[in-house]
Amino acid sequence: MTDTTGIATVTEAARRAGAAAEGFGALAPAARRDLLDACAAALEAAADGIVAAAADESGLAPDALRGEMARTTGQLRLLGAHVAAGRHAPERVSAGVAAGSADVRTVRVAVGPVAVFAASNFPLAFGVAGGDTAAALAAGCSVVAKAHPAQPETGRAVARALGGVLPEGVFSLVEGGADVSLALVRAAEIRAVGFTGSLTGGRALMDAAAARPEPIPVYAEMGSLNPVFVLPGAAGDEEWAAALAGSVTRAMGQLCTKPGLVVLPETPEGEKLAEALAQAVAAAPSHRMLTAPMARAHEAWGEAARALPDAAVTAAPGAPGPFAVRVPATRLTGELLDEHFGPAVVLATAPASSYAALARTLPGSLTATLLGTPADEPGAAPLLRALALRAGRVVWNGVPTGVAVCEAMVHGGPWPATSAPWSTSVGTAAVDRFTRPVALQGVPRGLLGGFAG
Amino acid sequence: MTDTTGIATVTEAARRAGAAAEGFGALAPAARRDLLDACAAALEAAADGIVAAAADESGLAPDALRGEMARTTGQLRLLGAHVAAGRHAPERVSAGVAAGSADVRTVRVAVGPVAVFAASNFPLAFGVAGGDTAAALAAGCSVVAKAHPAQPETGRAVARALGGVLPEGVFSLVEGGADVSLALVRAAEIRAVGFTGSLTGGRALMDAAAARPEPIPVYAEMGSLNPVFVLPGAAGDEEWAAALAGSVTRAMGQLCTKPGLVVLPETPEGEKLAEALAQAVAAAPSHRMLTAPMARAHEAWGEAARALPDAAVTAAPGAPGPFAVRVPATRLTGELLDEHFGPAVVLATAPASSYAALARTLPGSLTATLLGTPADEPGAAPLLRALALRAGRVVWNGVPTGVAVCEAMVHGGPWPATSAPWSTSVGTAAVDRFTRPVALQGVPRGLLGGFAG
Repeated sequence: MTDTTGIATVTEAARRAGAAAEGFGALAPAARRDLLDACAAALEAAADGIVAAAADESGLAPDALRGEMARTTGQLRLLGAHVAAGRHAPERVSAGVAAGSADVRTVRVAVGPVAVFAASNFPLAFGVAGGDTAAALAAGCSVVAKAHPAQPETGRAVARALGGVLPEGVFSLVEGGADVSLALVRAAEIRAVGFTGSLTGGRALMDAAAARPEPIPVYAEMGSLNPVFVLPGAAGDEEWAAALAGSVTRAMGQLCTKPGLVVLPETPEGEKLAEALAQAVAAAPSHRMLTAPMARAHEAWGEAARALPDAAVTAAPGAPGPFAVRVPATRLTGELLDEHFGPAVVLATAPASSYAALARTLPGSLTATLLGTPADEPGAAPLLRALALRAGRVVWNGVPTGVAVCEAMVHGGPWPATSAPWSTSVGTAAVDRFTRPVALQGVPRGLLGGFAG
Repeated sequence: MTDTTGIATVTEAARRAGAAAEGFGALAPAARRDLLDACAAALEAAADGIVAAAADESGLAPDALRGEMARTTGQLRLLGAHVAAGRHAPERVSAGVAAGSADVRTVRVAVGPVAVFAASNFPLAFGVAGGDTAAALAAGCSVVAKAHPAQPETGRAVARALGGVLPEGVFSLVEGGADVSLALVRAAEIRAVGFTGSLTGGRALMDAAAARPEPIPVYAEMGSLNPVFVLPGAAGDEEWAAALAGSVTRAMGQLCTKPGLVVLPETPEGEKLAEALAQAVAAAPSHRMLTAPMARAHEAWGEAARALPDAAVTAAPGAPGPFAVRVPATRLTGELLDEHFGPAVVLATAPASSYAALARTLPGSLTATLLGTPADEPGAAPLLRALALRAGRVVWNGVPTGVAVCEAMVHGGPWPATSAPWSTSVGTAAVDRFTRPVALQGVPRGLLGGFAG
């Protein structure tokens, strides 16, 4: 494999992606599906090496990474099948409406080369062959993917597998730091950007994209609070303590949908559930975090939380592991409403009658969750509506971690959760980010064949 | 009517739009349809005064403005009917796919207050109650509309009509210069921007929106070349000279879809058609332009074109009116590929075999047009594909001016034609700009009623 590090390689990769774009975009959707299937097969053939590299570089469990590999190959195949069936371009024809009684017909074309930034917390499913790459390839876009700096071997192993099956220039890997990231976003050939990571990182890419001579969209998934509201009826169900603690601490709290805030009713049941949840979080198993800076940030948040007035921190003794921060609901402002990556959660009790008003003070999130019994349903509509206006997905009686890859999924949401709340990074609708509509007016039937999508 | 001028009124209008947003967004789609119908009826009742103001301020013919009023009220009613029928939120359910066999269902919610900037070239259809306002209201978003500075009385007359029927805060008018525009884009309550105008103006709003603490999308429709390619068979049809000249000079060439470049075959028929087109453009009737700066820019472009090497300008004698600039195809770079607002067109002949390669050098446009006979069809696929990659709408055997308001329309396209090539400002799909998807996971049926769209 050639060297993939540095700005010169970005220029060259973008040039190759530009040269490949029109030919790849003109492939029939079934041909793109076949290539995506071949990518999935190639990843499976190389799975042992890829999983070993990812486990070594991420600290995540090999079993979890094997599951993630299955999700990664599954979404490559799902998105390929989606476009091959034409479901990304449903027929839209306005017959005889234009001058001369011409038909107007909407088709979809690929937007052109896409820059994809691999995330560290899902080294495979959001990695260089993760959801953004699968969506871009399914859409007919060539891809320049940047490996996460903390996981270079994982990125290279995945790229080797794809390089064996995709046409020249359709997929390239680049590596490097912030200078390489910015050079990639600024490369003239790049037409869109997919990113999963921090708010700081996403904003830097957005600013660079907005300042280009020709601005391009950045689809950035960033920080998310993921609030959970426990309705009064559900507070008596002690099983939620274990379920929520598992959601907070799974993968060391390094999931973008980790619940960062749980609001419970100001009732004896609510107080009891809050205490049980705090204990369950503190008792959860601990392992190393993805990177040293993330570990330091988690530790710093623990120290800051302990210094907060009126706050009570529940944690296991010793090294910074999972912890819960209990605060009065009236304190829910500022950094208590920021995302804190890692196995930590903020707990607050409040009168259930104040939930909707409290929800209206929350920032945008990928998810919001309500836990309730049938008895809670009649009164839940205002809270549900308020949460839907601040999230990309609203969960009833479940935990927000675990995102189903399906047609109806929305993994998105208002700022700061994402930069593009009109779209999703997970599910078949992710393909829509990388195509755009074109109206064909009066075009003869014999010439429509080139626009199968 | 209260004063609508200045930055203080922007702050107040944005505050009122923010206060009204959640309630208006929660209205059932049929209730929004009824309000849009009432807006249309109110505009019709006030039509005489509005048309008189618009004719006085724009210089456009009263007959054309009456047609535009019909289009304006028609699109208010069409978009209302679209959402009332639920067509903006087609059912998308993935049954039993999430944890606990929960259903995932995509619904759509309004994004919140929208800033709309009225254009001058369609004082009504792209004015303060034009397409962007209709789409935003249909989506359930409150609107703060800024009147075009050259057409204040038109904006006020339209706003008076709407003010009589829409709930408090759902629609506000503001007026002023660039400082007011930027203040509106920066107002914290505003969640999206709709703009039709110049590249300079659109870019300024985009830069301000991108620099906000919470960036918001700007749907800007800006400059467009709108190339036309005459295929060899069609060059013998002299009727295209009159049709194209009409398209170039209609409304003094001040339409965003005005053809700015016509490429003809390097054949005797092509040369003859080019000459006939140049003569027809020069002979077209002339009237004053929308604003003095636009008239000066048109005059300056005429002087610059005359000074170009190898260029031949065909124009009527006297004051700057319509003109055609004939250049060799090899000169088609730089300012010859920029939009020039006004009744002017660039003509070039080239071998038809070079058309697709030439198309690949063109900037993004709202439209691209091919004129051809059945004999031209077999060879036209590469050119058609190349143009579809650079335009939002491709017209076969028609003129690009005249945009049908229908389901399948795309009035959009790659930079610099628009800032958001994934969307359209005309047609029912325009509503999609101002809603966003939310996935409801496991939400009980009894709670879905609040998400009819």
